Amino acid sequence: MAEEIPGIGQKDQARDRPRDEPRELRVKSIINGTVIDHIAGGQALNVLKILGISGTTDATVSVVMNVESEKLGKKDIVKVEDRELLEEELNRIALIAPNASINIIRDYKVIEKHPVDLPDEIVGVVRCQNPNCISNTSEPIKSRMLVKARNPVLLRCLFCEQPLTDRIAEYLI
Amino acid sequence: MAEEIPGIGQKDQARDRPRDEPRELRVKSIINGTVIDHIAGGQALNVLKILGISGTTDATVSVVMNVESEKLGKKDIVKVEDRELLEEELNRIALIAPNASINIIRDYKVIEKHPVDLPDEIVGVVRCQNPNCISNTSEPIKSRMLVKARNPVLLRCLFCEQPLTDRIAEYLI
Repeated sequence: MAEEIPGIGQKDQARDRPRDEPRELRVKSIINGTVIDHIAGGQALNVLKILGISGTTDATVSVVMNVESEKLGKKDIVKVEDRELLEEELNRIALIAPNASINIIRDYKVIEKHPVDLPDEIVGVVRCQNPNCISNTSEPIKSRMLVKARNPVLLRCLFCEQPLTDRIAEYLI
Repeated sequence: MAEEIPGIGQKDQARDRPRDEPRELRVKSIINGTVIDHIAGGQALNVLKILGISGTTDATVSVVMNVESEKLGKKDIVKVEDRELLEEELNRIALIAPNASINIIRDYKVIEKHPVDLPDEIVGVVRCQNPNCISNTSEPIKSRMLVKARNPVLLRCLFCEQPLTDRIAEYLI
């Protein structure tokens, strides 16, 4: 367990902070915040996009990309300090990182841990790939995608029924 | 010096790897590669864009955003392992991070260290903000921006002479 969860939970009693993680983990433990682990290698930047984290963010964020993972071969990890991401934010991550796991951290401890889980409908996150769809016009409506399958992800537009399963990251709004 | 350069140079003799960095630094020393430090807070994602690092990269990359900096208040740091970025790549970073410093690392040691420096002309990196400029048409030409000032950055399009100084990051190609 300690191998795959980035430096969570075990305090170094001499110094009152976590024992040093294996070098592969590269990013230190956080005191409070959210850790998203087991993101498919290279997808961290899309995860930040889904969470609305860009150049204008105030949040302290750590990201590693393409580190070794027993489970996935290569993985990315995203840590956001002092912010407990909402469940709806985290579940959108399942669109591009179906194997991701979420750890909510308080005072170095994992107080909540769960896999991501796609809801049945995604609103305003993924654009329909049909250029003629009404959701791609100037009408004041958000995109609405029904989730037909979860691993691999298969979406279908509520309005025009166009399916979307490949390269979903390219259609992130 | 040790404060501002992320964990460079000093090996822990007992363990033959670098002494633990201050907690604020958050990201471990790398063995070989390039470290870009003193990036203006929040600009790391644009730095990755300039370096062509996206979801399809193979490189192992570590990023922290909005960590404390004596020099800048808030800063970002980008580390790219096993890759020594070319000088032309690094100098483009000066467009959005004029105070950045580059450290080339081999076997934990800083073998080369220099500030970023904008060249006199930037080709194919920043798009002209004039929608009527010939460089924004389907003509097979790359954008060409002359560098008229460096801090703050002032660019001028070679073709239509339109200046560009604000929100340069939004015009990155």
